[in-house]
Amino acid sequence: MNLEALTTPCLLLDPSRMDRNIARMDAKLASLGVAARPHLKTAKSVDIARRMMRTLSGPATVSTLGEAEAFAAAGVNDILYAVGIVPNKLMRVVKLRQRGAVDLSLILDSEVQARAVADASRAFRDPIPVFIEIDADDHRAGVAPGDARLVAIGRILHEGGAELRGVMTHAGGSYDTPGADAIAAMAERERAAVVACAEALRAAGLPCPVVSVGSTPTATFARDLTGVTEARVGVYVFMDLVMAGLGVCAVDDIAISVLASVIGHQRAKGWILVDAGWMALSRDRGTASQAVDQGFGLVCDVDGRPFGDLIVHSANQEHGILALREGSGAALPELPVGALVQILPNHACATAAQHAAYHVLGEGRTVVEQWERVGGW
Amino acid sequence: MNLEALTTPCLLLDPSRMDRNIARMDAKLASLGVAARPHLKTAKSVDIARRMMRTLSGPATVSTLGEAEAFAAAGVNDILYAVGIVPNKLMRVVKLRQRGAVDLSLILDSEVQARAVADASRAFRDPIPVFIEIDADDHRAGVAPGDARLVAIGRILHEGGAELRGVMTHAGGSYDTPGADAIAAMAERERAAVVACAEALRAAGLPCPVVSVGSTPTATFARDLTGVTEARVGVYVFMDLVMAGLGVCAVDDIAISVLASVIGHQRAKGWILVDAGWMALSRDRGTASQAVDQGFGLVCDVDGRPFGDLIVHSANQEHGILALREGSGAALPELPVGALVQILPNHACATAAQHAAYHVLGEGRTVVEQWERVGGW
Repeated sequence: MNLEALTTPCLLLDPSRMDRNIARMDAKLASLGVAARPHLKTAKSVDIARRMMRTLSGPATVSTLGEAEAFAAAGVNDILYAVGIVPNKLMRVVKLRQRGAVDLSLILDSEVQARAVADASRAFRDPIPVFIEIDADDHRAGVAPGDARLVAIGRILHEGGAELRGVMTHAGGSYDTPGADAIAAMAERERAAVVACAEALRAAGLPCPVVSVGSTPTATFARDLTGVTEARVGVYVFMDLVMAGLGVCAVDDIAISVLASVIGHQRAKGWILVDAGWMALSRDRGTASQAVDQGFGLVCDVDGRPFGDLIVHSANQEHGILALREGSGAALPELPVGALVQILPNHACATAAQHAAYHVLGEGRTVVEQWERVGGW
Repeated sequence: MNLEALTTPCLLLDPSRMDRNIARMDAKLASLGVAARPHLKTAKSVDIARRMMRTLSGPATVSTLGEAEAFAAAGVNDILYAVGIVPNKLMRVVKLRQRGAVDLSLILDSEVQARAVADASRAFRDPIPVFIEIDADDHRAGVAPGDARLVAIGRILHEGGAELRGVMTHAGGSYDTPGADAIAAMAERERAAVVACAEALRAAGLPCPVVSVGSTPTATFARDLTGVTEARVGVYVFMDLVMAGLGVCAVDDIAISVLASVIGHQRAKGWILVDAGWMALSRDRGTASQAVDQGFGLVCDVDGRPFGDLIVHSANQEHGILALREGSGAALPELPVGALVQILPNHACATAAQHAAYHVLGEGRTVVEQWERVGGW
């Protein structure tokens, strides 16, 4: 199918860029001596998961139990659900573990959650594997290194009937830290925090076989991951403008884009209107705080070559307004009504989430496959 | 089903608030003497559309051809597709008109689009009804009042085989204009622009039976709509924090919320973590530029009563961080792990779009129905 035959807006995927991103990350993690546990929340696609995972059965990370169930149905049986567990989701966890023979593990950061998981483990005679979440960079959830609650939580799990599998952290702060050296320092902070916590657990006589870190920026620039056993990475599969702004990738590594049609012009204002608004692009403005603000996305021609300074200046539900970046000396490209453009996303996870499927590019402006996404919770 | 039995995050709908919003808008438009052509892009639900429309068959406005097809399949046969048409969508338009006997009308603002629609009308022996879009407030698409292209476009349509049905505008600029008087002035600007264009067409000997305006703020505060025949309104059905910030509604008119579970705490920072991030809330920050910034949403207890100064301070994909508004003297509410909260949306269209269905509230924390949403393009 030619691009011209698609209904715009829709989501395009360049599989050669994606495969290159996957190979690069795999090589990097191998060089650091850590296993990959790819995070499937970015792609939410069985077809793509199979290219990201080491084997067809995993390991993998997910952000919802809906993803866990969908990937389990597709044969993935080693899954970490990486959002703090609440007691009323435990029934669903136990069902999936028992019905599907899935090694589904959980994360938590409090005694109350640990007690709930330990109680469920005993009640269902199923030692549920648990990672204690560590707050390596002050940015979200987790027990801080040095906090006495760490060992207390570990003890509740280990002595209460759950399986204390290890510690995990996510250096989300790395998304605000541009440049290889700064991100490498963040990776070392992430490593040091989680390894110190693993050692504290072991010193207290508790098991901690797995030490898990994770973020695409820190994995890309980490220099040493001694003590870490696995890395959870997600957005590397597609990359995006936020990652490019951090120096984690080049713009031409970005593997997804939104195909849009020009629907009009406001020539006096230097505007080109397209049929991709925030419904197709998401409202993510992750580059707003970076050195180069890409608006709601960077505009490329139908073959995926950026025009340069043309960005999505503003977005309504089904309208995007393209304009030259402020201060640009470039000329507005001549794009008649009906012309197709590709728009690169600020944040691949958010943009892909607005779509039900990927249209997979083949040679010469063709789409050769459609890959469905998993939705909901 | 009790709220406690739902999987969080999920979308709740309070039908009594919705019905009150619909009745208020219907009464307002009746008092102004204009017909309602509700915009279904906010709710995207057949069940809700039936409460918004004057009859089961319409009239209605949609933002995608996917919506047009879904609502046509449910019996709606008077539909305006209110995004500028591109030539390669015309085949789908003609199919829906002919197969479904649907009076599907289009909008456009250029000669090139007018020629394409006129050509299709002739080729398929089907005079496609068209509204010329007017730019009443400099904010997006449309022909400016006074622009000679207006009559040129009208003539291409009328003489070329299409049906020139009228003029339409959307005063999107009203979303940036707080207060009844300022919005009433915007409504008058919207009215004056579109009525002047209708008169210009008629003066040139062209038909212009329908004169259509549309936005919830301007419809709410308009004082006189002489010359206007219909209003397209959408977000009024749910209302949201942006509308409350403009003075268009009260916070307790907001009919949808996201139900979330507390998953943890960072007590030293005054943070409560919940399992609703931007995937459930959207990344809309529409209140950021208003007098009261609601973060990613205003937090209510499980019964829908706002805590006051507690907002979603930041959001990752599946994590929301609740915190008191900066400068608040209130105490952080005690919300243990597993506690449920309701989060009111900045922008109802954007938040609802992140979900596949509405969970419809009944008496006393129960959910009595589930209403599906239409997705895609």
